Amino acid sequence: MRAAYNDKMTELGDLLGEMAGLAGEAMDKATRALLQADLTLAEQVISDHDRITELSTVSEERAFALLALQAPVAGDLRSVVSGIQMVADIDRMGALALHVAKIARRRHPNHVLPEEVNGYFAEMGRIAVSIGAAAKVVLETRDPELAARLRDEDEAMDDLHRHLFTVLMDRDWSHGVAAAVDITLLGRFYERFADHAVEVGRRVIFLVTGKLPDDDATVKADADNLTTYPD
Amino acid sequence: MRAAYNDKMTELGDLLGEMAGLAGEAMDKATRALLQADLTLAEQVISDHDRITELSTVSEERAFALLALQAPVAGDLRSVVSGIQMVADIDRMGALALHVAKIARRRHPNHVLPEEVNGYFAEMGRIAVSIGAAAKVVLETRDPELAARLRDEDEAMDDLHRHLFTVLMDRDWSHGVAAAVDITLLGRFYERFADHAVEVGRRVIFLVTGKLPDDDATVKADADNLTTYPD
Repeated sequence: MRAAYNDKMTELGDLLGEMAGLAGEAMDKATRALLQADLTLAEQVISDHDRITELSTVSEERAFALLALQAPVAGDLRSVVSGIQMVADIDRMGALALHVAKIARRRHPNHVLPEEVNGYFAEMGRIAVSIGAAAKVVLETRDPELAARLRDEDEAMDDLHRHLFTVLMDRDWSHGVAAAVDITLLGRFYERFADHAVEVGRRVIFLVTGKLPDDDATVKADADNLTTYPD
Repeated sequence: MRAAYNDKMTELGDLLGEMAGLAGEAMDKATRALLQADLTLAEQVISDHDRITELSTVSEERAFALLALQAPVAGDLRSVVSGIQMVADIDRMGALALHVAKIARRRHPNHVLPEEVNGYFAEMGRIAVSIGAAAKVVLETRDPELAARLRDEDEAMDDLHRHLFTVLMDRDWSHGVAAAVDITLLGRFYERFADHAVEVGRRVIFLVTGKLPDDDATVKADADNLTTYPD
């Protein structure tokens, strides 16, 4: 029973890791689609998204089967429950990458971004890819130190997001309201992508150490980030 | 065992309903704070938010205890797992109301909204309150017909959200980029609030009928909504 549980739990962790990896890859392609106005890449993200949705369903069903057939207790039970909760976060990461790709597709053949903000999105994209890859490893290895490091990348993302707002709000902004609306939504999508990865890390830390990180929680991080965007 | 399970499950449904009710009330106050530039109301939403976070933790712990102590099987097990998943959606509804309140507070004593979009937010606020109240009843009664009707309200929200974008994107928009950025974020918060309520309804429908609604799923609804905001 115990060996069966362990095998199934490893499988579930790997599935979640695979999802996080795919979400990171989707954000990589979506960012390139955005920066290069590349319709083919955007459409690839959109069609690849089904695979993440499918893995979401499979993961939920596997976790449910684990509960039903292995009846885990104590820490094992908590691991499965956390797995179910993490599916929603990782699924959402994929949906956010999809949103970025859809904006790139909608504006094609035009570029969504004025050149002066390209650098922000290149860097937010780089962080998103890195945080997606790190979340994958965290899910597969349950390394609490690596999980804690997701927060550092999230902070870098929040900084960029704040700076992006100062650019938008500047009196010299000459690219009009429509571009500002797109950029506002895009910035939000990248920032939320990182928040969900941090939430995954937070759950892994709790599972392994029994404690939440000191500077909890993700919802708070999201709220703080909003508070501090420039007036 | 079965009677104990039923009692605990009713308690969990009521707790989730209470959370949804509080999220709806928070959105009501946040909307009034926004429309009237009312700092006291905005701060009330912000300080009341802790209660939703607290109920979130309590709900998760109750659901976990239910699994650990009652070891439910089959449909009962599925109910508890859904309960755990719904906590995240309802918690997020509260966080979105908090975001609206924080924007109202940040701009105080100024109004966030130019007068011409007040009507949109008054109506989006009305729908949010109504959908929050309906979600509360759905959680308490598990009425699948009422749960399906949440989607209608969500569609009304999406329509408003789309119209709001046409106003922002209009060449005659004279309120500058900063207001447009705020309105873009606010619109997104109301729209996501409704999406999460629909997701709660969808899970209740699945629990009661064993089938998902025909026009599934929420993530798709969110994605479609983005697709259709005006080019």
